[in-house]
Amino acid sequence: MSVYLDNSATTKPCAAAVKKAVEMMNENYGNASSLHNCGYSAKKELDAARSALASFLSCRENEIYFTSSGTSANNTAIFGTALSKKREGRKIITTKLEHPSVLKSFELLEHEGFEAVYLSPGKNGKINLDELYNAVDGGTVLVSVMAVNNEIGSIQEISKIKDIIKAKKSGAYFHCDAVQAFGKIPLTPKKYGIDLMSVSAHKIHGVKGAGALFVSSGVKITPVTVGGGQENGIFSGTEPMPAICAFAAAVGDLGSIDKNLEKAGELKSLFLEKLKNLDKVYVNSPGDALPYIINISVEGVPSQVMLNSLSAEGIYVSAGSACSKGHRSSVLAAVGVAPKLIDCALRISLSKNTTENDMDLLYNGIVNAVKRIRR
Amino acid sequence: MSVYLDNSATTKPCAAAVKKAVEMMNENYGNASSLHNCGYSAKKELDAARSALASFLSCRENEIYFTSSGTSANNTAIFGTALSKKREGRKIITTKLEHPSVLKSFELLEHEGFEAVYLSPGKNGKINLDELYNAVDGGTVLVSVMAVNNEIGSIQEISKIKDIIKAKKSGAYFHCDAVQAFGKIPLTPKKYGIDLMSVSAHKIHGVKGAGALFVSSGVKITPVTVGGGQENGIFSGTEPMPAICAFAAAVGDLGSIDKNLEKAGELKSLFLEKLKNLDKVYVNSPGDALPYIINISVEGVPSQVMLNSLSAEGIYVSAGSACSKGHRSSVLAAVGVAPKLIDCALRISLSKNTTENDMDLLYNGIVNAVKRIRR
Repeated sequence: MSVYLDNSATTKPCAAAVKKAVEMMNENYGNASSLHNCGYSAKKELDAARSALASFLSCRENEIYFTSSGTSANNTAIFGTALSKKREGRKIITTKLEHPSVLKSFELLEHEGFEAVYLSPGKNGKINLDELYNAVDGGTVLVSVMAVNNEIGSIQEISKIKDIIKAKKSGAYFHCDAVQAFGKIPLTPKKYGIDLMSVSAHKIHGVKGAGALFVSSGVKITPVTVGGGQENGIFSGTEPMPAICAFAAAVGDLGSIDKNLEKAGELKSLFLEKLKNLDKVYVNSPGDALPYIINISVEGVPSQVMLNSLSAEGIYVSAGSACSKGHRSSVLAAVGVAPKLIDCALRISLSKNTTENDMDLLYNGIVNAVKRIRR
Repeated sequence: MSVYLDNSATTKPCAAAVKKAVEMMNENYGNASSLHNCGYSAKKELDAARSALASFLSCRENEIYFTSSGTSANNTAIFGTALSKKREGRKIITTKLEHPSVLKSFELLEHEGFEAVYLSPGKNGKINLDELYNAVDGGTVLVSVMAVNNEIGSIQEISKIKDIIKAKKSGAYFHCDAVQAFGKIPLTPKKYGIDLMSVSAHKIHGVKGAGALFVSSGVKITPVTVGGGQENGIFSGTEPMPAICAFAAAVGDLGSIDKNLEKAGELKSLFLEKLKNLDKVYVNSPGDALPYIINISVEGVPSQVMLNSLSAEGIYVSAGSACSKGHRSSVLAAVGVAPKLIDCALRISLSKNTTENDMDLLYNGIVNAVKRIRR
């Protein structure tokens, strides 16, 4: 039996998602662009998946564009905005907390002549909105701020960002990487003034190979994945139907976001309470972070040593994001965690299916590792 | 019972591919970048899939990069070369026969200041290699020529292209879109002097959502899908493991390429022989085309009318490529098919599983449609 607590890296597909993927592989394998019944049948499922996602996000169906991953959604939003608006200006703003798919996109644009600003978070893991206000100017074409950080779970004040852009009379688009927030907290892009929002299937018990980009009506981005014009030209390539339709099935299987969140909060509280029994364990996640992501440092036990010890017991957590593969976390550095504690950091990430027993087994695993390694 | 003869648009996943995808969803769902046993187990499958593909293409494992589709492989190769070599020159050469994922990439690069040359095919569906020779110059950075055309099945003289580039003392990379050729004809990139080669899973009974790009050792392309650095930085994003591992399973299930090809050739000959019983039916595919793709025009029966008639009988063919969705084929125009015959074109695309009975049912379906519609 294993305890999987690395849900911010990826989740186990739910039964409904697997079932739908299998149906799309075995029974409904047509190309959604084909002009015959086999194609129409696939197209119908594609439309249904889009409709399900649009309904969940309270937006229109033609504002949802499926992509192949959260990364491709982020790339499409950022490069697409840069290409579309490069004649309006060359300033792009983001934060030091972002996922590599945002940060690397910004770096690539810097090579292409854009001026990038990287806002620093405070110790609370949030960016300072006054700094954002000061950074936005007439030449700013994009502000990209994630909703929930993938390493420490800090939540940004997303609903205030578009107002700041407007207050500065900037035409910049607001892109939000909502990969970690999606399905965990209520996030209605229209209500929050979000122009572009990225989500991913495999973080919410869908199947790896599908993401989606919300593009608000009237927002124009230049396609960067080009070809047959699928997804209304925004993301070409034969649609990954099994993963897309499984994505919609996983959304349908989420249950009550509020109840799930409450449960995650309780599990987090209980776990942190127990951790107080251990010396020199520090919580890196801010107090008001999303409870699904708990970042701690166990002083004296290097991350990978702890990971290996837990992994040997069938308990899976991570040191940082899976996408940073063992590099020292720049996010923890940005929120002021000392280097020696960064090297001992653990990210414990829950899902809606995590139980108290899972957390107890994790706690015991940490205690065992500490006893053996610290002595 | 249905007769699926639109295999160039997409294929039905084979049982081995579906089984592997299900295994990766249910049992091996870890993130291949995660540093614990659940991640290592996924990584092992990713390595095995890469090894299977490398072995099939007689190349090294580190020359295979998984992508999310054939389109993303083509985009990655073309944009990646353009970004990497833009200081060496701005001329890029391709053909009028290419898939939209190549043509649209070239168009986008033209907007960014590149000079694109589009070689025309002759009536035999092949480009003239003398014209290619004349087009290549010192400023040429990329030559992109597909192996097998997706609409008429014409086969290019791929093995001669790198020699032409070298003869002109050009450092241009040779990219080959082998999506339709892969698994159908022997195609060893190293032997053919190919620098970059795109393939796709769902055209060979794999699962939609995976492609791959062969990048020959020493060839440097700039990544355009950026983030966590997956696929050695060439194509970021959490790997679509079910589709990638199913891809390898489908490759393993191909059987003998030569025997499959022989069978397709026999089916094509029998079918064309029978078609002679019908008046005013013209074969648009050249005589030496890949037998898996048979393009014909049934004069007096517009494509979509024929498609609908066949579809009603459970027989699925296409008018052109699924990626051109009913637009008049530029490929047929390029090989000199008259407009009124383009409007009556049908693409019949076989797979290794196509039977004589399938082709007979198709023939009967065409006869029925002709009788009803032409009178």
